[in-house]
Amino acid sequence: MSNTRIERDSMGELQVPLNALYGAQTQRAVDNFPISGQRMPAQFIRALILAKAAAAKANVELQQLSEAQGKAIVDAAQGLLEGDFMPHFPVDIFQTGSGTSSNMNANEVLATLASRLLGEPINPNDHVNCGQSSNDIIPTTIHVSAALALHEQLLPALEHLVQVIERKAEQVHPFIKTGRTHLMDAMPVRMSQVLNGWAQQLRANIGHVHNLLPALQSLAQGGTAVGTGINAHPQFAARFCQQLSALTKVPFTPGKDLFALIGSQDTAVAVSGQLKATAVSLMKIANDLRWMNSGPLAGLGEIELEGLQPGSSIMPGKVNPVIPEATAMVAAQVIGNDSVITVAGQSGNFELNVMLPIIAQNLLSSIELLANSSRLLADKAIATFKVNEAKLKEALSRNPILVTALNPIIGYQKAAEIAKTAYQQGRPVIDVALEHTDLSRSQLQELLNPEKLTAGGV
Amino acid sequence: MSNTRIERDSMGELQVPLNALYGAQTQRAVDNFPISGQRMPAQFIRALILAKAAAAKANVELQQLSEAQGKAIVDAAQGLLEGDFMPHFPVDIFQTGSGTSSNMNANEVLATLASRLLGEPINPNDHVNCGQSSNDIIPTTIHVSAALALHEQLLPALEHLVQVIERKAEQVHPFIKTGRTHLMDAMPVRMSQVLNGWAQQLRANIGHVHNLLPALQSLAQGGTAVGTGINAHPQFAARFCQQLSALTKVPFTPGKDLFALIGSQDTAVAVSGQLKATAVSLMKIANDLRWMNSGPLAGLGEIELEGLQPGSSIMPGKVNPVIPEATAMVAAQVIGNDSVITVAGQSGNFELNVMLPIIAQNLLSSIELLANSSRLLADKAIATFKVNEAKLKEALSRNPILVTALNPIIGYQKAAEIAKTAYQQGRPVIDVALEHTDLSRSQLQELLNPEKLTAGGV
Amino acid sequence: MSNTRIERDSMGELQVPLNALYGAQTQRAVDNFPISGQRMPAQFIRALILAKAAAAKANVELQQLSEAQGKAIVDAAQGLLEGDFMPHFPVDIFQTGSGTSSNMNANEVLATLASRLLGEPINPNDHVNCGQSSNDIIPTTIHVSAALALHEQLLPALEHLVQVIERKAEQVHPFIKTGRTHLMDAMPVRMSQVLNGWAQQLRANIGHVHNLLPALQSLAQGGTAVGTGINAHPQFAARFCQQLSALTKVPFTPGKDLFALIGSQDTAVAVSGQLKATAVSLMKIANDLRWMNSGPLAGLGEIELEGLQPGSSIMPGKVNPVIPEATAMVAAQVIGNDSVITVAGQSGNFELNVMLPIIAQNLLSSIELLANSSRLLADKAIATFKVNEAKLKEALSRNPILVTALNPIIGYQKAAEIAKTAYQQGRPVIDVALEHTDLSRSQLQELLNPEKLTAGGV
Amino acid sequence: MSNTRIERDSMGELQVPLNALYGAQTQRAVDNFPISGQRMPAQFIRALILAKAAAAKANVELQQLSEAQGKAIVDAAQGLLEGDFMPHFPVDIFQTGSGTSSNMNANEVLATLASRLLGEPINPNDHVNCGQSSNDIIPTTIHVSAALALHEQLLPALEHLVQVIERKAEQVHPFIKTGRTHLMDAMPVRMSQVLNGWAQQLRANIGHVHNLLPALQSLAQGGTAVGTGINAHPQFAARFCQQLSALTKVPFTPGKDLFALIGSQDTAVAVSGQLKATAVSLMKIANDLRWMNSGPLAGLGEIELEGLQPGSSIMPGKVNPVIPEATAMVAAQVIGNDSVITVAGQSGNFELNVMLPIIAQNLLSSIELLANSSRLLADKAIATFKVNEAKLKEALSRNPILVTALNPIIGYQKAAEIAKTAYQQGRPVIDVALEHTDLSRSQLQELLNPEKLTAGGV
Repeated sequence: MSNTRIERDSMGELQVPLNALYGAQTQRAVDNFPISGQRMPAQFIRALILAKAAAAKANVELQQLSEAQGKAIVDAAQGLLEGDFMPHFPVDIFQTGSGTSSNMNANEVLATLASRLLGEPINPNDHVNCGQSSNDIIPTTIHVSAALALHEQLLPALEHLVQVIERKAEQVHPFIKTGRTHLMDAMPVRMSQVLNGWAQQLRANIGHVHNLLPALQSLAQGGTAVGTGINAHPQFAARFCQQLSALTKVPFTPGKDLFALIGSQDTAVAVSGQLKATAVSLMKIANDLRWMNSGPLAGLGEIELEGLQPGSSIMPGKVNPVIPEATAMVAAQVIGNDSVITVAGQSGNFELNVMLPIIAQNLLSSIELLANSSRLLADKAIATFKVNEAKLKEALSRNPILVTALNPIIGYQKAAEIAKTAYQQGRPVIDVALEHTDLSRSQLQELLNPEKLTAGGV
Repeated sequence: MSNTRIERDSMGELQVPLNALYGAQTQRAVDNFPISGQRMPAQFIRALILAKAAAAKANVELQQLSEAQGKAIVDAAQGLLEGDFMPHFPVDIFQTGSGTSSNMNANEVLATLASRLLGEPINPNDHVNCGQSSNDIIPTTIHVSAALALHEQLLPALEHLVQVIERKAEQVHPFIKTGRTHLMDAMPVRMSQVLNGWAQQLRANIGHVHNLLPALQSLAQGGTAVGTGINAHPQFAARFCQQLSALTKVPFTPGKDLFALIGSQDTAVAVSGQLKATAVSLMKIANDLRWMNSGPLAGLGEIELEGLQPGSSIMPGKVNPVIPEATAMVAAQVIGNDSVITVAGQSGNFELNVMLPIIAQNLLSSIELLANSSRLLADKAIATFKVNEAKLKEALSRNPILVTALNPIIGYQKAAEIAKTAYQQGRPVIDVALEHTDLSRSQLQELLNPEKLTAGGV
Repeated sequence: MSNTRIERDSMGELQVPLNALYGAQTQRAVDNFPISGQRMPAQFIRALILAKAAAAKANVELQQLSEAQGKAIVDAAQGLLEGDFMPHFPVDIFQTGSGTSSNMNANEVLATLASRLLGEPINPNDHVNCGQSSNDIIPTTIHVSAALALHEQLLPALEHLVQVIERKAEQVHPFIKTGRTHLMDAMPVRMSQVLNGWAQQLRANIGHVHNLLPALQSLAQGGTAVGTGINAHPQFAARFCQQLSALTKVPFTPGKDLFALIGSQDTAVAVSGQLKATAVSLMKIANDLRWMNSGPLAGLGEIELEGLQPGSSIMPGKVNPVIPEATAMVAAQVIGNDSVITVAGQSGNFELNVMLPIIAQNLLSSIELLANSSRLLADKAIATFKVNEAKLKEALSRNPILVTALNPIIGYQKAAEIAKTAYQQGRPVIDVALEHTDLSRSQLQELLNPEKLTAGGV
Repeated sequence: MSNTRIERDSMGELQVPLNALYGAQTQRAVDNFPISGQRMPAQFIRALILAKAAAAKANVELQQLSEAQGKAIVDAAQGLLEGDFMPHFPVDIFQTGSGTSSNMNANEVLATLASRLLGEPINPNDHVNCGQSSNDIIPTTIHVSAALALHEQLLPALEHLVQVIERKAEQVHPFIKTGRTHLMDAMPVRMSQVLNGWAQQLRANIGHVHNLLPALQSLAQGGTAVGTGINAHPQFAARFCQQLSALTKVPFTPGKDLFALIGSQDTAVAVSGQLKATAVSLMKIANDLRWMNSGPLAGLGEIELEGLQPGSSIMPGKVNPVIPEATAMVAAQVIGNDSVITVAGQSGNFELNVMLPIIAQNLLSSIELLANSSRLLADKAIATFKVNEAKLKEALSRNPILVTALNPIIGYQKAAEIAKTAYQQGRPVIDVALEHTDLSRSQLQELLNPEKLTAGGV
């Protein structure tokens, strides 16, 4: 007995696995694109199914589908989302540049399930895809999946990271350390100032992401084939967005200009650029943590990160800063994902960008990686590190750069002489300053007190 | 007679050109960095001089400088800006990563000029640099110069481009052309829809840039050495921003967290990411223009761009789309500039990012290139192209894809058969549809009328 | 009954799935890195297992392991490779930057299997990892896996693509088309010249890849912890390479300087740069194919690519150039993968680069994507396209640029006048030339014959 | 009196500065492209002039020009090169994508000078450009200018850097320091091992650049308009290469396939990829130097770089690692330049890549930056740093990781216990090992001797 069945589409017949929910066009895509072995991300497929449900509801309202047809499609979509839907979506990421194969995959799977539920045929193109084209539904799905991933994953993760950093900043407020510019000893800073700086870097990124959400939640849907809206009801875009907003609790709106939203992927490019900026911030934070933790003896040794696993297959007792390292790798990957999206975004011609699948994949990958690593960085690195107070104090008191605080009194040139002498003779700066100025030891102690120096001011 | 004079700084003596306004530290930098032969951008130096004037004014208000000292510095700055100041700023872009050499260059030049005006010594460090550090003034200058360049150059240029496109869209509204998806013939679009799509792409970019201005106009000034504000008056940041806003007519504000603004270059990274997104939009528009103009005989030939120069040294009579090409090259360069800024942004450690000069250079270069090419694209390409109506019409009427409009009546599958037959037999789709459906010729003429098809709707 | 067992490592006890072949350190990594959900590539794991087998053999030869121990490890490795090994390698790509977790995963799995085979304990660290460190075995595995993937996948795929192109070039030799520079009509070219140009682009890339193989086949093995070779037998590197070469049929050699090979990932960066260059070539070829295929009516329409699947969910009868599109997306992805590897490569400090897992992943991904898409491009696009001779001829004969051929006789300036007149009046260039020169019609026919023009020469 | 004169080209008349050597087409380009204010690099213009001289000589040999005409052009070219030629080449980088404006600029300037020398008219197109097209001469000039810059600048600079590093390695051979992996204390290494590792990184890069020279020295010349060689003598390519080789002392050869060399910029992409790889190596070396130099008190403090300039405008006595910083910025810029070239390279269509000017500019910029910074890094950083032996020794002896050397005797697990105890109790590892093993103090001293540990081996 055969384990395939015959299906047909506008190009003719072909064999499909006997029990596959999908049909001919999905199978053609599986056959045509044995490239990466990687499927479109589950986040993307989920958003596509949600969009199909919203479209069916809108089409019922606008009398493009019967109530029964619409219900069958919506029920099919919900059933699919409640289970393990990915096995039904076997199309490779590297497929037709419009994502038509993934759109037809969804149309076919939902048509099969809806037909079963309804007991009469639901057509993938005429019913499930009613009022839609790959040209609008795939750009819509990129926006929807990215918006959901930002709302559900990245923004809460970044907020969590900010809060953990700020809580830690309160804990470590008493500690003062040698500031470093050019990696060289500079004026002292409080540990809390360092951490609050990180928190503010992340807050700024969160703000920039929020500013891009209205554009991301503005959808191409209703443009159909080239942006004109051919074959869609004039009210379809508005009704679709209402239904999708209800399903997802995220406010989606019809795009101002559907030609721009179909012909370009500018919003994805802008969002990815901002994700890259967030990655850059995380790279800096991860590297600061790694260096502060370096040592324990031949490094800076300012903090001790929680030990999570043996660090070496050969060097016993070694413990490494694995979470900041993983975070730094995430940052590097997100920077590269942004390069892909940039090259893809600038490749478009005329009425459709045809690098949509890799834009979807790289954008969603960046969001997920940033979200997951931000949580780990918060919980397994920042929340749990210990401060090495002795090490901090040792370096602090001997730092000739503290002489900076004397500039307003003795001038830069004289201060420079004192600092140089202190370096060369390896003596405490206060002793040298006592010799080179008219200031008393108690005045100098007051002026050079690290506690006071971190509070700024003349 | 020698054409040099002896100067000294905290490292000792060295020879400086006899008439140079700058002093020892500038000369050391000139000697130390014979790398690119390129100086810091004039936009950057101008913003640095403006910032020095604002700092002098603030320091007078806060009684850190005398009125006479302050006035001398401010007058020196104004005099400098009114003339050809760049010969006095010879430091290479590839210098110390903090831009300290450029800061000291400004301090030295202004000290020389102010001393002459005042008739008594103004010290580069103690007076011109009063209440400042390279650590805050250089990040401040990056923000200020970029903000001024956006306000003065890029935003007006993009607005101009949008207006020119929208005016052109009105002119070309009557023309309908074959839409293209995957480069293949698709449903028709109006030429005005294409152009308005471009305008909306640019409007979105303008909006995203505007959203980033508050962050860009938020300054590191007041943080001095490492962000703590050591040696600056507590009110210095606020007064400085007031004075600078008055000088530039752009509202600058003290940063919320100066450690973040000195330790990272996140805002520059975010702005550059958005400039890159704008470049991606321009690349798309430039390429659409190039392809629409292709031919004249063996290309698409939809439009004819104004001829600006002979196109070939060997092929007589050839005219090329040189302005869209230059625009596309600008886009590629801006994408690369963003890579530089990304690598630089993620390289920071601890209290100071030390890739500031290349961040400044690449950011300002991107703004200038985008601004200048946007104006050229508007005035020498979009405003002046002619439409080849005959060519548009020829392709339009024979396009079997128009059958799409029949989907709602006859279904996708039957429509596909009609389209294929029309392709294979090279016949008008209306004739084939007449044979394969029950629709009358007049019904079909109505349904397949390109004018109506570009208006969308079922 | 519990479905876990207790394991312990140098950090203490933890629970591991009852039947897992791996042990405590793998489990820690699974727990520590819930980031991407993606595992290290199978190609990487396979190379790691092969390297472990080669190490065991070398250690037996050098009397670091008994014959029985060595045989058990080798047999375990071979058994593993013959089956479905990936379920035993659950560690996320985003893990410790040294890949130690993957190394220990391999050590643990092989120790379990080898202990079973031998009937006495084989220790993951002391036996399977004998004479090795993650610091050398992971860089080694990157080189080995990439070298195998180049030899087995990419180089044969590119050779196949070259051969298919060259065969096609022979077939299409008779066809002459209008050349295009700046997208504008230029002098004619033979279709075979176009295709042979592509073939040569690819041949050059193949050559550049070959030039990098000696560096890629030069291994870090023997450096152990930091490059000094601590705890490895002095002859270990040489013996290991002999054994691995025998197992893989690829000649691997000990690196000249193990500090360079462990402290940097320069070879991976160089290879990735060359893969990116290959991607750039493929992008060009894919886009030329897409544009030549564009239309069929409103595009260039020079060729017709084989139809592989319905092109649109809404536009019936549409067929798109899906294989060149997928290839172009591969090219964009490889460009982005190279960005990741660049950022990772420049992030290293001191004795070890700690972005090894993403270097491995992105490098192997680039090789696989390029290999698979090259084969598809060869077999489903280039081998099967048809030439539209009528369309080529139509444009060719009317091209005023053909006047170029008269330059040597009448000069550029006069030729330009003839071309302009021909454009403006829409007349054949030969007719205009007849009026403006002393040449006879037969002379002009000879001079302007496209067949001859593609052969070059004055 | 007017300070302009009237010139004309095939598009009509226009005004040109009275004394300009260039003519109408250069002036059009100056008017058309007010974009960056930056001119094509002098290296490029020089190579273009050399190529024009070589072309004139070849054309005389092939009787396409008279001896007198050829001599006049060659003499004009030599005269130009001996003086300050850049003022005569005012065309912006962002111009026509083919570089035709720069080609015509050279043709016009040489025609003016040659006409003066000869006393009769030399035509820019018919004589100076004889047998050439921008389509071949500009790609040729990219290859020639890059090859000359590699031979004259980068390769000698890298060789110099290698030699300085290797000499320094000999000097610092006695010093042993704590190795670092993951930034954490690892097994010891000799300072000479570190430096020789760097030297080998650079040697590998030099080798990879050398491997690309044959491709770079293979020229498009002879292809003329689209690669067919129309209007060039069949032996022109060969003669041109002979003449150019004689002029430059670099062996240039005719390209195997001129369509590939004109239609793509693959060689430039490959070379740029390798320059980027070299930048990655330099970034690593620069960062290692910066970190080794960090401190002096609160950093690693292993070395002291030569002080070149005061480091801070506010912190007296501060000295920063400015040369490694400048080098790191160069690396970041070269990485970004490579992005530009990648985007440009993948943008080509059909018979000509039209992003040639930015490919030229970014490629030559990368070469120059790498060359100049390599020399500075050699002479002002590596040659002159001092080693802080006391600091190295202090960390070395207390490092519990030294226990690694006991693995082969006591096993990884027991060694891990010893290391942990030593860390926790802050005791020398030798004392703890004495308690936990049967080894005597003298055995342990022998086994844990850092001198021996850096020599590797079991």
